Amino acid sequence: MINKLAIVGIGLIGGSLARALRRADAVDEIVGYGRSLSNMKLAVESGTIDRAEVSLANAVEGADLVVLATPVSAMQATFAELGPLITEDMVVTDVGSVKVPLIEAAYEAFGDLFGRYVPGHPIAGKEYSGVRHAEESLFDNHRVILCPEPDTDDDAVTLVREMWDVAGAEVVLMPAVKHDAILAASSHLPHVLAYNLVDNLVRRDEHKEIFKYSAGGFRDFTRIAGSDPEMWRDICLANRKAILECLQSYTRDLDVLMRAIEAGDGDTLLETFERARHAREIFIKPNDLDEDDDY
Amino acid sequence: MINKLAIVGIGLIGGSLARALRRADAVDEIVGYGRSLSNMKLAVESGTIDRAEVSLANAVEGADLVVLATPVSAMQATFAELGPLITEDMVVTDVGSVKVPLIEAAYEAFGDLFGRYVPGHPIAGKEYSGVRHAEESLFDNHRVILCPEPDTDDDAVTLVREMWDVAGAEVVLMPAVKHDAILAASSHLPHVLAYNLVDNLVRRDEHKEIFKYSAGGFRDFTRIAGSDPEMWRDICLANRKAILECLQSYTRDLDVLMRAIEAGDGDTLLETFERARHAREIFIKPNDLDEDDDY
Repeated sequence: MINKLAIVGIGLIGGSLARALRRADAVDEIVGYGRSLSNMKLAVESGTIDRAEVSLANAVEGADLVVLATPVSAMQATFAELGPLITEDMVVTDVGSVKVPLIEAAYEAFGDLFGRYVPGHPIAGKEYSGVRHAEESLFDNHRVILCPEPDTDDDAVTLVREMWDVAGAEVVLMPAVKHDAILAASSHLPHVLAYNLVDNLVRRDEHKEIFKYSAGGFRDFTRIAGSDPEMWRDICLANRKAILECLQSYTRDLDVLMRAIEAGDGDTLLETFERARHAREIFIKPNDLDEDDDY
Repeated sequence: MINKLAIVGIGLIGGSLARALRRADAVDEIVGYGRSLSNMKLAVESGTIDRAEVSLANAVEGADLVVLATPVSAMQATFAELGPLITEDMVVTDVGSVKVPLIEAAYEAFGDLFGRYVPGHPIAGKEYSGVRHAEESLFDNHRVILCPEPDTDDDAVTLVREMWDVAGAEVVLMPAVKHDAILAASSHLPHVLAYNLVDNLVRRDEHKEIFKYSAGGFRDFTRIAGSDPEMWRDICLANRKAILECLQSYTRDLDVLMRAIEAGDGDTLLETFERARHAREIFIKPNDLDEDDDY
C-alpha cells in the first residue's frame, strides 16, 4: 500500500503507528527521523523502523507518505523545515492534539502544495511516552480524527484514511475548529483540572495523608496528572482560546455548586449529581472504557 | 468472636461486611434491619444475613455489636432511634464518610453510653450500591479509619478493630476533625469536581461529540461521577465546611493556571504540571491503584 513511509518523531505514537502498519504488512519501508539519537537507536534495534536518517531531507526523499509525530511544540518548526522538501507525489499528515494552529503553520510552510497535507489526530495514547512503550495495538478500535480543509487533495485524504484503517483505527472527518473545541472540552479541560488538583493537594501540609487515603476519586485524577507535562503545556498554549472558554464555563458552574454547599441547598446538589450520573449512563459505552487511553 | 451482630442498613457496605465476617467465621448470628423490604429479602435469600427484623428494637436486642451502615443522611435519625435501645454490653459503630457531625449526633442520642460508640469509616466501595453488589473481599487490604473520642471505651475500640481486622481491612486511628479534613481533600473534593465536569459538558450543545471523544482524561472523571448522587449530596452537606475550604483553595489555584494560559505563560504551566506528575510518582503506590474503589 505504501512504498516508503517517513515518520518524523519516533515516540509512543510514531513508534506504535510503525508497528501497527508492519502488523498489517502495509508498508515496504519505514524510515525514521528524530531529535534523539537514543530513541532512533531503540526504534531500529527493536525493529520498529527499518532505518533511521539523521537528515530530514534524506528521511522524506521519495516517501509516499510523511507522518509528523513530534510534540506539538516542535510541529511548526518541522513544517517549516519540510516546506522546501515536499513534492506533489508526497502526502503529509500529523498526529497533533490541536489542529487549527498546525493548519496555519502548514499553509505558511507548504504554499501551493498545502493540498498534500492532511491534518490528523489519533485519539489514543498512554500515560507513558517514548518508543519503548510503543504497541502495535495502540490504535485498535480507537478513533482518528482527520480535519481536511477545503483545499486538501482528495487522494491525500484517501491515503491517510487507508493508513489509519489498516492500523486498526476508526477514521472520522471533522472541521479543525470543531476538533479543537471538542477536544478542549473532552480532553484538555480534564487534564488541566487534574493537574491542578494534584498540585493543589501536594502543596498542603497534610499532603502525605491525603495521598495515603486517596483510594477512589482522587486516584483517577492522579492517573491523568501523570501525563507528559511538556506535551500538555504545549497543548494548553496551542489551543489556548478554546481551553480558556471551557475553564470559564467550568468555574461558573463550580461557583453555583459552591454556593449550594454553602447554603446547604441539597436540591441543587442532588439535581446536578443526578444529571451527571445520568449523562454517564447514557453517553459512555462500556467498550469506550478501556484502561490505557491517555488523550 | 461475636455472638450477635446487628447490621442496620443492608446495602453494599453492610452486606459486604456481613460476607467478610462470615468468610472469617467470626460471628454466630447476623441480623439485618433496613428500610427496604426487597433489600432485606435479597440479603436473607443470598445468605448474606441469617435473618431480618422489621423492628430496630428486635434487631439490636442482645447484640454484642451494632453496625450502622445506612446512608449518611439517615444516620442521625438512626442514632436517635437507637438511643433508648443501647446497653452497656453493646458496642455501636458506623461506616459514615463524615465523622464530626455523626459524633455530635451520637453524643446527643446516647448520653452516658456515648463511650460504647466507635466512629468508623471504611475507605472502600464501588460505584454500584446495593446488597446485590456486596462482596466478601470488598475490604481486603483497604484501610478503615476509626475516630475514637477521649470518652470512647477502650474495649469498644478493641472489638471494632478486631471486627475490621478479620474482615480483611487495615485499621488506622485518627481524630475525627482530621478525618473530615483529609477525606474532604482526597475524596469529597474530587467527586464534586467530577460531577461538575460531567454536568458542565452534558449541558453543552455539542455534548454528544464531547462524550464520543472522551477516551482518556474525561473518561476517568465520568467513572467517579457515576457514584450515588444522594450519598454525595449528604456528604457535601455533612462535611460542608471542610469541602468548601478545599474548593476555595482549588479555585484559587485554578485561577492562577487560567491566567497563565491566557498570558501564554508556559513556564508556570510546565512547573505546575511537573510538580503534579512528580507528586503522583512519589505518593501513589501501584498497589493503591486497584480498580474498584469508589470513596
